[in-house]
Amino acid sequence: MNRLEIALEELKKKRVSTGIVLKPQNIYYLTGFYPSAFAALLLQENPTLLVSPMDEKLSEAAGVEVEVVKNFRRRLKQIKGKRVGIEKGYASYEFYERYLKSKRVVNLGFIEEMRKVKDRGELKRIKTAARIAEKVMGEVAERLAQTESEKELAAYAEYLLKREAGAAFDVIVASGKNSAIPHHTPVNTKLETSSIIVDLGAKFEHYASDITRTFSLAESKTFSEFYEAVLEAQRAAIERCVAGNFAKDVDLAAREVLREYRLDKYFLHSTGHGLGLEVHEAPKLSAQNSREVLQEGMVVTVEPGVYREIGVRVEDMVLIGKKPKLITSFRK
Amino acid sequence: MNRLEIALEELKKKRVSTGIVLKPQNIYYLTGFYPSAFAALLLQENPTLLVSPMDEKLSEAAGVEVEVVKNFRRRLKQIKGKRVGIEKGYASYEFYERYLKSKRVVNLGFIEEMRKVKDRGELKRIKTAARIAEKVMGEVAERLAQTESEKELAAYAEYLLKREAGAAFDVIVASGKNSAIPHHTPVNTKLETSSIIVDLGAKFEHYASDITRTFSLAESKTFSEFYEAVLEAQRAAIERCVAGNFAKDVDLAAREVLREYRLDKYFLHSTGHGLGLEVHEAPKLSAQNSREVLQEGMVVTVEPGVYREIGVRVEDMVLIGKKPKLITSFRK
Repeated sequence: MNRLEIALEELKKKRVSTGIVLKPQNIYYLTGFYPSAFAALLLQENPTLLVSPMDEKLSEAAGVEVEVVKNFRRRLKQIKGKRVGIEKGYASYEFYERYLKSKRVVNLGFIEEMRKVKDRGELKRIKTAARIAEKVMGEVAERLAQTESEKELAAYAEYLLKREAGAAFDVIVASGKNSAIPHHTPVNTKLETSSIIVDLGAKFEHYASDITRTFSLAESKTFSEFYEAVLEAQRAAIERCVAGNFAKDVDLAAREVLREYRLDKYFLHSTGHGLGLEVHEAPKLSAQNSREVLQEGMVVTVEPGVYREIGVRVEDMVLIGKKPKLITSFRK
Repeated sequence: MNRLEIALEELKKKRVSTGIVLKPQNIYYLTGFYPSAFAALLLQENPTLLVSPMDEKLSEAAGVEVEVVKNFRRRLKQIKGKRVGIEKGYASYEFYERYLKSKRVVNLGFIEEMRKVKDRGELKRIKTAARIAEKVMGEVAERLAQTESEKELAAYAEYLLKREAGAAFDVIVASGKNSAIPHHTPVNTKLETSSIIVDLGAKFEHYASDITRTFSLAESKTFSEFYEAVLEAQRAAIERCVAGNFAKDVDLAAREVLREYRLDKYFLHSTGHGLGLEVHEAPKLSAQNSREVLQEGMVVTVEPGVYREIGVRVEDMVLIGKKPKLITSFRK
């Protein structure tokens, strides 16, 4: 069975007559067509893709029937059935109120459930995206000493990513005290050399990579201490990236190491996340994700960090299997 | 009254005890803090910003009380009151189901209503973003003849935008038959010179610009015919960008000109959109936007296009007033 057929089977099990898929990544996953404007995939006996006139040409490649829609509002009001499926975490309340208020709404969460485990074609793209990111990270590392500002370096890294493939997200370059802000936006001031966090990812054929390295051009005891702790936490976390383990155990392993260094309270985010068509997708490697079990074929990032007067974060990509398998390998 | 006070007045009128603002642009508009992770602004007697530990430092600049939240799920379940406000077009159905199912839900649409009309500070930033976009477009124009591929040119344009400020969206470079696809993704093949659409925008202090130029390095009757028609359509549309006019009249004016050229059915999108904190925001200059009236201080794009065997689109930014006021002026 192909993906679309599996999805239709799931719908049948839920006794849903029509599923309305709005999220571009999910539409792409099921049809091979990546919408550039608003679109809706109607999962039903005869699956139909509703696309804007702007996407008429692009949608020719889709593996399902395509209907070009000029007035989506009118078209969506025609959807029949008592039980209708939507992506509850993606569809807006307004969408529900406008089109589905008199219906019973069922979640189409199984699509993202399917996406968690990657097939061979997906893994190939993810690995290519990872290789491109590593290559760019290498070029960034060589340029550090001559770099003017965070902004200049981030713009350059993105140029390299985009020339070759695409950028999965805005590159983060955070130096000195800015490195203590996990999602810092690069600024125009001079690059501080005490600690330089570079977080970047490529997008290759819609699939993302995501890696982080932290550099230091100065001798600093604080940096060395943080760096050692973070690397040890990362190693412990990666060891738990084994099929059958709980996702939360990966997070707890990293936290445990940082606790030994008395740095756990400066670790401000979860240990990692799945990635694929989205940079952040399931599974979340978080202590709060209590029931998720890791499965063979999942791809996750492992990225512990410490954020105090300066910050250090190291992030690699791991393929879950009987053993953990590192997808990225560049190390300063 | 400042923006937050105006918003609280609106809430009172709607007899809403708590408004939950989730959209980052709206949070920024009301507080001056732009979240980098999930955040919620509780509009209530004592407005409170709920932020992730990652955003603790960034949120120090916010003009309201800040509460650092480790477990948003638990915190959001504590929200009291029978009538609660949300951004209906932004909050997901899941958010509603999880936190608000037993409540009466009211739309916080007035925030985006407020954002439509720009104040002096906003206009200044938008104009700066426009100047940067024009400058980059000039550098792109000079580089056309030596450019290898769409992808190379798009990556270069984004590099220039990001080095100086930020990019408002992924730069579009679409040449030859690709120019007939409004949202084409730049590819690695050789740049075709018959028609080259370049669509780019800068982001300066969170405010966006958005301009499009179409170039041709070859002599082509089709190109000249399309270009002339599009420019004439644009001129007619801009003339209608006057306070008191209906938004839809701007769209209809462009369509009317293209009809005279028998090209109206190749114009695949609406004539323009508002822009500010988002690249696409209200008002939409569309025939379907039936009741919206243009007001002094709105900023819109005017961007008719024709997409047949090749495409031509020209896009400028206009400030609505007693007369239309062009914000961009670069012209090939």
